[in-house]
Amino acid sequence: MSSAIHQLSASEAARAIRAGRLTSETLVAACLERIAARDGELAAWAHVAADASLAQARALDRQPARGPLHGVPVGIKDIFDTADMPTEYNSAIYRGHRPRADAAAVTLLRQAGCVVLGKTVTAEFANLHPPATRNPRNPAHTPGGSSSGSAAAVADRMVPLALGTQTAGSVIRPAAFCGVIGLKPSFGSINRTGVKPVSDTLDTIGLFSNTLEDAALALSLLSGRPVPDFASQIAAPRIGVARTSRWNDADAATHAALESAARRLASAGADVKDAALPPAAEALFDAQGLIMNFEAARALAWEQSNHREAISATLLKRLDEGWAVSREQYDNARQTARDARRQFADLMRGYDLLLTPSARGEAPLGLASTGDSLFNRVWTLLGVPSVSLPSGSGPNGLPLGIQLVSAIEQDTALLAHAQWAASALARAGRRHSPAQLPGTVPAGSVST
Amino acid sequence: MSSAIHQLSASEAARAIRAGRLTSETLVAACLERIAARDGELAAWAHVAADASLAQARALDRQPARGPLHGVPVGIKDIFDTADMPTEYNSAIYRGHRPRADAAAVTLLRQAGCVVLGKTVTAEFANLHPPATRNPRNPAHTPGGSSSGSAAAVADRMVPLALGTQTAGSVIRPAAFCGVIGLKPSFGSINRTGVKPVSDTLDTIGLFSNTLEDAALALSLLSGRPVPDFASQIAAPRIGVARTSRWNDADAATHAALESAARRLASAGADVKDAALPPAAEALFDAQGLIMNFEAARALAWEQSNHREAISATLLKRLDEGWAVSREQYDNARQTARDARRQFADLMRGYDLLLTPSARGEAPLGLASTGDSLFNRVWTLLGVPSVSLPSGSGPNGLPLGIQLVSAIEQDTALLAHAQWAASALARAGRRHSPAQLPGTVPAGSVST
Repeated sequence: MSSAIHQLSASEAARAIRAGRLTSETLVAACLERIAARDGELAAWAHVAADASLAQARALDRQPARGPLHGVPVGIKDIFDTADMPTEYNSAIYRGHRPRADAAAVTLLRQAGCVVLGKTVTAEFANLHPPATRNPRNPAHTPGGSSSGSAAAVADRMVPLALGTQTAGSVIRPAAFCGVIGLKPSFGSINRTGVKPVSDTLDTIGLFSNTLEDAALALSLLSGRPVPDFASQIAAPRIGVARTSRWNDADAATHAALESAARRLASAGADVKDAALPPAAEALFDAQGLIMNFEAARALAWEQSNHREAISATLLKRLDEGWAVSREQYDNARQTARDARRQFADLMRGYDLLLTPSARGEAPLGLASTGDSLFNRVWTLLGVPSVSLPSGSGPNGLPLGIQLVSAIEQDTALLAHAQWAASALARAGRRHSPAQLPGTVPAGSVST
Repeated sequence: MSSAIHQLSASEAARAIRAGRLTSETLVAACLERIAARDGELAAWAHVAADASLAQARALDRQPARGPLHGVPVGIKDIFDTADMPTEYNSAIYRGHRPRADAAAVTLLRQAGCVVLGKTVTAEFANLHPPATRNPRNPAHTPGGSSSGSAAAVADRMVPLALGTQTAGSVIRPAAFCGVIGLKPSFGSINRTGVKPVSDTLDTIGLFSNTLEDAALALSLLSGRPVPDFASQIAAPRIGVARTSRWNDADAATHAALESAARRLASAGADVKDAALPPAAEALFDAQGLIMNFEAARALAWEQSNHREAISATLLKRLDEGWAVSREQYDNARQTARDARRQFADLMRGYDLLLTPSARGEAPLGLASTGDSLFNRVWTLLGVPSVSLPSGSGPNGLPLGIQLVSAIEQDTALLAHAQWAASALARAGRRHSPAQLPGTVPAGSVST
């Protein structure tokens, strides 16, 4: 088992630890070894707490299990406060910054017996200025952002689970680009205390993992939502294919991956129909950016007022756009969002899931941009839960993602239906086109 | 003028500074003198930055006016981060805590030329454990909470303007108890970055002042909302008297003050009718506490996990109640709030204002409790703007407040209508019962 320890999913590792077949210390050591071997190239980590993590793991090995992920290491995006590690937001303004307290989400993970392995690289203030992190599937490409390090670390199997945040598309997009599972829960699912704000209306804590089971366990631990019973059979879902008005902004490979998934899900028994977004929801493609920039300008007021020279030109431009938005425009955008949430709730009486692209295409070449959040903005502002599943690959052989979306607060049902979909796609993939599904692994199918 | 300088409203003082009749340094010195004379008894301040404030005032006196409140000192509730002053949340856990950055609201005030005079006393973590602050109208009574120091400092004319926050009733209630104006803007009006969270769904930054003009100017500066034109005549508002299902929880003096205000506003030309809250809004009396406690338990997870012994028994009990709420109960309460917001928006098509009590009665005797937030919870969870105006007094001669409420985002219209109401009540008071209106002063009516 030793050579593959760092590849275990969080749930597999926790089961092995509970059964006495693995120690947390061995697992953490394997992850640290993987990081030592690979992070020079990938730059996924802003800080690795090697000694402290091993010490915590040894302490946990002497205790009864505190939760379903006892002994499992996690990566934390470097916009979450940690009292025992630097918290720098990838900004020179905060070099060496050490907050007084841990973020609420970090505390909950620690209380449940997780080991905080370190802080993963974020784009500057979780915004759009790209970091140095590379895509593990092909280091010449961006891993996406702003949760770049969390996506890359989980994709490279440096750690089985990582926290990120999404304000536009910072969980779903990097998950798709790196070929892992990204979960953006319903707005307000996970407490944000101690997370550096970008936009109060939008900031949502999310998760990166290699299995849906891991995402479900971590979400349950952090939000109190129930874990779906992945072992039980559920009815085939009613799926709406949401191409949206921006369909032509996705590339041909993304079109093909989505249409193929829709066909295969229908073959597996799902009731698949086209779903048009209601008018107010369509308006959120624009409203999201306006709200985000208005709020980000104010959230970073102190930094602009006191350290303007240390902020990237990319970010300053966006903050200036935020100051140029009038209060009336902002209030109107928020009213549109309220209308859209109501219309979307009505739409979702007819569907269990919407199927829509996770991104415009595969990860762009180079590190100059983390890619485009276009296909994520609407769902973030609606506040509805969504998950990205790896599905197919693009012209450069990099992973593509399909995004599944449910109604607000239906996170547990979303995960159950996503598991149904992942299993159906994996079966179809085995029958017809195995190369189409490099990363879609049914929960629990990888044996320890 | 010298003896009354500390009594000037923020707008009066700013006008005098702009006209060269007053310096910021003289004003700040007068406020510091008032604090030195009175705060030994009242304990409104957690930290007074005397030397730094005077230095900032002198610097501002050498500059052209940066904004409409240039040179005006403000008090900041001690749950807002300040990089140059301690930020302690009235908790021993944070003794001497010095954050890296200023809160966004503090930065905006400083950019506009305000002087941060110091930090005002908060209840522990802006929750319910009472602080040592006393009511300036009668030091044997509580000033209310959790923004206790801000209300007391403004009421005692130690400072003309102060920031607070409201999660249940922490702005409107202490404003009423202390006989000042309290403004709780629409949810999301003022950016919360750098404010210690209690409840993401509820926490709202608010203002204390002695005139509506001051509240309007400060809100405009902090939110970008327009200032109403107080000089122009507006049509008499349509007013709904919202006694609510909890009317019998208010005392006889509060009943009398509200009924008297309703009669006088009708006499002045307002269209006054009874307004029943829609059913989902009535349900928010209970839903608010459930949401607040669920979120507060998580927001203070690090403190409970690492410093449980330093948290008051009062707060621990409430946090334990929060942990006992299930995710399903919490989600249901949030769904009720969404329904209530929709129903309330429909109701408010028929009214410009609702008139409702600010509190159950006058400030309770003693410091063992900061009073009851009952008559504030619904409006906070609805996210709608409300203002408390001093109106009448109770059996102990302490001030009573009436609360005016508008539809979401109608903050500017609320302030304009509140000014109409305050003027109408002041005229009626002069004609019939001057003793009924000790604190209601029309903006600009106090000459410098």
